[in-house]
Amino acid sequence: MKPTVCVVGLGQIGGSLAAALTRRRLARVTGATRRAETARRARRMGIVAEAGTDLRAAAEADVVVLATPVRTLLRQIPLVAPLVRPGAVLTDVGSTKREVLAAFRRSAPRAAVVGGHPMAGNEKAGLDGCDPDLFEDRPWVLIPGPRADRRARRLLETLVASVGARPVWMDDPARHDLTVARISHVPYLLAYALMEQPGPELRVAGNSFRDATRVAQSDPDMVLDFLLTNRGPVARAAGELAARLRALARLVERGAEKGLRRRLEKALERRSGL
Amino acid sequence: MKPTVCVVGLGQIGGSLAAALTRRRLARVTGATRRAETARRARRMGIVAEAGTDLRAAAEADVVVLATPVRTLLRQIPLVAPLVRPGAVLTDVGSTKREVLAAFRRSAPRAAVVGGHPMAGNEKAGLDGCDPDLFEDRPWVLIPGPRADRRARRLLETLVASVGARPVWMDDPARHDLTVARISHVPYLLAYALMEQPGPELRVAGNSFRDATRVAQSDPDMVLDFLLTNRGPVARAAGELAARLRALARLVERGAEKGLRRRLEKALERRSGL
Repeated sequence: MKPTVCVVGLGQIGGSLAAALTRRRLARVTGATRRAETARRARRMGIVAEAGTDLRAAAEADVVVLATPVRTLLRQIPLVAPLVRPGAVLTDVGSTKREVLAAFRRSAPRAAVVGGHPMAGNEKAGLDGCDPDLFEDRPWVLIPGPRADRRARRLLETLVASVGARPVWMDDPARHDLTVARISHVPYLLAYALMEQPGPELRVAGNSFRDATRVAQSDPDMVLDFLLTNRGPVARAAGELAARLRALARLVERGAEKGLRRRLEKALERRSGL
Repeated sequence: MKPTVCVVGLGQIGGSLAAALTRRRLARVTGATRRAETARRARRMGIVAEAGTDLRAAAEADVVVLATPVRTLLRQIPLVAPLVRPGAVLTDVGSTKREVLAAFRRSAPRAAVVGGHPMAGNEKAGLDGCDPDLFEDRPWVLIPGPRADRRARRLLETLVASVGARPVWMDDPARHDLTVARISHVPYLLAYALMEQPGPELRVAGNSFRDATRVAQSDPDMVLDFLLTNRGPVARAAGELAARLRALARLVERGAEKGLRRRLEKALERRSGL
């Protein structure tokens, strides 16, 4: 029999996960949302078997996925965790993990908990961004939480792989948060810093500028959510990056061709291997 | 009768321009390259009517386009400019413009000179990157040089528009160089700085990182060429950007949600208008 997966929060990530599971007939998907209209829309789109506004839907599921923005998630964890039955698996898709895992621990769940973070997304907000192929070939970080036994870890790994993602285990939520500060949150700050440059210049913007500023089109609520739940690591990673930028600029200013070439070639090699 | 356009240097930009003009039957295109093999390859590809290694091909053209890397270009200008006949138009596609326009002035040309800079490109080197649609909807900066009368400016404007680009006139080469330092060269430095971050993190790189580091795959020779002919403006623009990044990071660190939201919303609005 197919497992029941309850997705709490049907935004871009939750909606895409529901769509991926439903389209591939991998699970019976139920949904719980704050707004009744979102639940209706998800039913009309055919990405959930049923959906409503009652969090108690989580009680009947084999897997519960909390897919609300991190700051909402932190408020929901104490409400939802006690509802999830023993033997089920509780996970989330929040973009930062220290505060989330701490909240899971405080909630003393009866179910096994595995924190999650799919490295996927597009620029559209909510169900407008729903895309069953969103996770295709994207990393999906998994971090063991309370009661995360081997069975629960296996189940989550299979689930994320089944929607096309590449599961990547990490043990330390703090390490996760510094990592995403460096490879995800700082690129957002860079995009905003680039967009704050003097105005008339933008009419000659080419591909390098467009690529580097694409994420500035993201939903500000989503971005504030991960920046403000990852303040220390973001500040540290931004400081490191600013220092690296200044060091490269000094090589340019001095005309240090040899040293620059070595660094450019190394970056080219690493980037091509991504 | 169709004009004859002589393209000196058949790399990615020169080759793409030759291809765009030939495919659209807009001009009879001749080519001059350093390596005989490149000229042969361009002929086989059918993107030029004829091509060889002799710069004197420039003497017979109505328009001469210097499409070599900036530092090669600076050496070629004194050799080619005297060959171009009065009544013809001499232009270039170099990514920095102060040193190039100065070299044009020193060469005392008999032809009208208009400096040019198409804001277009891909990650492939040389004729591998040849793409007749490369300039489609891209800005192509034009800067009047010696003898640039109204007829010459019109002719160049028509030429770049005919291959799909948007002509953008600028008067001051120094202003151009600071502008491209900000909107093009600094995004390259940012990509390299991002790629220099600690190693294992990269396995979880998502779209924001991929977008922001895409240009790190560019040909290092091409990148060194524009960085090292634009040292002062690049250093200045990198310093400005590092300061903007630190200012944003301080807002994150302090949890200044209101101020951050205002900046994120403004950036979103400006980026959507690009």
